[in-house]
Amino acid sequence: MKEEVRKVKLASPRMAASAGDTRNLALRMMKEALDEEREAIFAANRADLKQAEADAVAAPILKRLKFDEGKLRDVSSGIQDLIAMEDPLFQTQLWRELDEGLVLKRVSCPIGVIGVIFEARPDALVQISALCIKSGNCVILKGGSEARRTNKKLFEVISAAVQKAGLPENCMMQLEDRSEIRELLDCHGLVDLLIPRGSNAFVQYIMDNTKIPVMGHADGICHIYVDKDADIGKAVPIIVDAKTQYVSACNAVETLLVHRDIAREFLPELKATLDEKGVEVRGTEEVVAIIPCSAATAADDSTEYLDYILSVKLVEDVQEAIDHINYFGSHHTDSIVTENQETAELFMNLVDSAGVYQNCSTRFADGYRYGFGAEVGISTGKIHARGPVGLEGLLSYKYRLYGNGQIVGDYASGKKQFHFRDIK
Amino acid sequence: MKEEVRKVKLASPRMAASAGDTRNLALRMMKEALDEEREAIFAANRADLKQAEADAVAAPILKRLKFDEGKLRDVSSGIQDLIAMEDPLFQTQLWRELDEGLVLKRVSCPIGVIGVIFEARPDALVQISALCIKSGNCVILKGGSEARRTNKKLFEVISAAVQKAGLPENCMMQLEDRSEIRELLDCHGLVDLLIPRGSNAFVQYIMDNTKIPVMGHADGICHIYVDKDADIGKAVPIIVDAKTQYVSACNAVETLLVHRDIAREFLPELKATLDEKGVEVRGTEEVVAIIPCSAATAADDSTEYLDYILSVKLVEDVQEAIDHINYFGSHHTDSIVTENQETAELFMNLVDSAGVYQNCSTRFADGYRYGFGAEVGISTGKIHARGPVGLEGLLSYKYRLYGNGQIVGDYASGKKQFHFRDIK
Repeated sequence: MKEEVRKVKLASPRMAASAGDTRNLALRMMKEALDEEREAIFAANRADLKQAEADAVAAPILKRLKFDEGKLRDVSSGIQDLIAMEDPLFQTQLWRELDEGLVLKRVSCPIGVIGVIFEARPDALVQISALCIKSGNCVILKGGSEARRTNKKLFEVISAAVQKAGLPENCMMQLEDRSEIRELLDCHGLVDLLIPRGSNAFVQYIMDNTKIPVMGHADGICHIYVDKDADIGKAVPIIVDAKTQYVSACNAVETLLVHRDIAREFLPELKATLDEKGVEVRGTEEVVAIIPCSAATAADDSTEYLDYILSVKLVEDVQEAIDHINYFGSHHTDSIVTENQETAELFMNLVDSAGVYQNCSTRFADGYRYGFGAEVGISTGKIHARGPVGLEGLLSYKYRLYGNGQIVGDYASGKKQFHFRDIK
Repeated sequence: MKEEVRKVKLASPRMAASAGDTRNLALRMMKEALDEEREAIFAANRADLKQAEADAVAAPILKRLKFDEGKLRDVSSGIQDLIAMEDPLFQTQLWRELDEGLVLKRVSCPIGVIGVIFEARPDALVQISALCIKSGNCVILKGGSEARRTNKKLFEVISAAVQKAGLPENCMMQLEDRSEIRELLDCHGLVDLLIPRGSNAFVQYIMDNTKIPVMGHADGICHIYVDKDADIGKAVPIIVDAKTQYVSACNAVETLLVHRDIAREFLPELKATLDEKGVEVRGTEEVVAIIPCSAATAADDSTEYLDYILSVKLVEDVQEAIDHINYFGSHHTDSIVTENQETAELFMNLVDSAGVYQNCSTRFADGYRYGFGAEVGISTGKIHARGPVGLEGLLSYKYRLYGNGQIVGDYASGKKQFHFRDIK
């Protein structure tokens, strides 16, 4: 397999040098081919669904596994959006004359070879491929095994279209077997970036077992802090939305922190609404004294439930909330509910998370909702991209220096001097 | 030690929220304190130098170890430059109204806690501290053991000044013992980024033994390709400069690739000049047939000599040169000598390196020479910063979302729509 990956690596400089028009043509041909081959794709998907049902796969996974007219329409419209976007490559980010006739340019370029390991969602294969093509990256794809037949067909259709458009052979590769993931993790030096999506345990496994840089997030322990100056009329719906709108999302709230001064007034009102939604509250002793709920243990502070469970804790002030979040949180997204702008700014300055929100649901942490178009994933790291990552996260840059015989010795000796004049 | 590192981590949100004026005051007080304590610093340095001489440390290391009036003047002027620079924090990179009353801002922030392990150059301690202060990062410093006394004194002076200026306690930490490096590598989750500088073997050791992201480079196998359309009058001095101007630099050239059509004319002329400079040439069979030189082995293709040695190989065309560089190079800096602009563009598009140069020496790859002011290091990775890294490489960003009660449910149900209006 490593030899196959090496072929992808060798294709990557030509992919990086490909013209924006060629990459757009590839996207257009990919879109058309998906449309032409729709029946074969749907048939493969029906076979996957049948198998999954026979294997008693859970309903939410079946829903994600389905690739039908609606999903095809969505991915096609996503491809169309990407075609309409400006070429992200060959963008001059810095243009500086260092000295007479010695010109430095910093120009955007792709990262190179991206390995993406994703869940059982065939539409993700199409989206990720399209993002990589637009950004001039080669891609190695490994989708969830439940979608094996659909993914195989989709990959066939897409890679044929992309070749026909004139992009380099081997600019895309698919892994079909789960055992190949282990081999992929060893491809340090051939794969430039890994983007794993899926369960916390799986992403953590990837992060712990490779020397390839990894972009993504394992945990999503998000918090909402209800300040003493909160508008309760806003706080209740925000918490209900953040907890229940999509319970298994990484940006769902897991821990609620409430200012002591407002707890007696606020908690009973919240509890009534959470009861209607079937949310279990796990409270500290102080909370149990105010509302009927089960008792939280220390483990609740660092648990991502991904379920209809919310842990609740009282704090003395915004500083205690900040400290709790920075210590127990996963630096994903945390929100404060307050009408006091000074308190909000303090919270947003001091909470060390990719997203710091005031008076809105943590569920907004998403590339689509930020207006990025497609999303590669959400990063909780601070190196390279942070938060929801769009096309920009798949880019690097290189420095191009144009001279006419300049040597460093002349500058070291003082014979010549740099003048650093920005052209742009 | 981990507990000490945790204190630094806990200080990092307050450091990130510190005002630009406070950070500039800290830089000013640091500069003044260094000036006031100059005699004590020089005395500590004399003791280090005496010890190093007794230990028969090599002359180039002694030179780097020295911290005298000249070095103090240089670092002071560097601090002054940083004070004059605009605050890199709290810069709005994106400002977008997602919907009525729901406003997203992407704002620059520090990375957090930076661990820097550097060679026996006391001036590096001052530069790195100053860069971290300006960018609001906490820093953990480990300098070369030969400079132990000087570093201890410098750290005392700087950290006292920084505290007095009002920056958080524990925003700086120094490791004094080499054994502590191993412990630092285990501080995943507390240290956000490691920047190791030093020998290839050392940097590689760091990269192989930590889960903390590492910025830097192990190898620097840089190439110059002399094209058939090269101006020989430019090629010879460029190669001599790139090889001999500072032989132990990572951006010195190690392998020369020459187009076959120009080899018989060019190599004898180059050889004569290299002989004057005492450079040993290791050539392939074809090269040995043209000029007297020792025979290269396969290992020479991937050796960073850091010495007066140059391996020379002939190629059929620019594509073979590109393939050789992408395979054997370390993606650091590679230069083409040609008067043919089309060939140059092909080379610069296809060579996958942080720096791709035309008609100039590879030795220009340096933050100072790019006009970045100070330099943290040079990165050969493509994730986060690439090439020479200045202040910008020490920054991340966070997304701040301001609402007035918005919930995702309203957008998922279609009750509300995003309108994505860029304010800036």
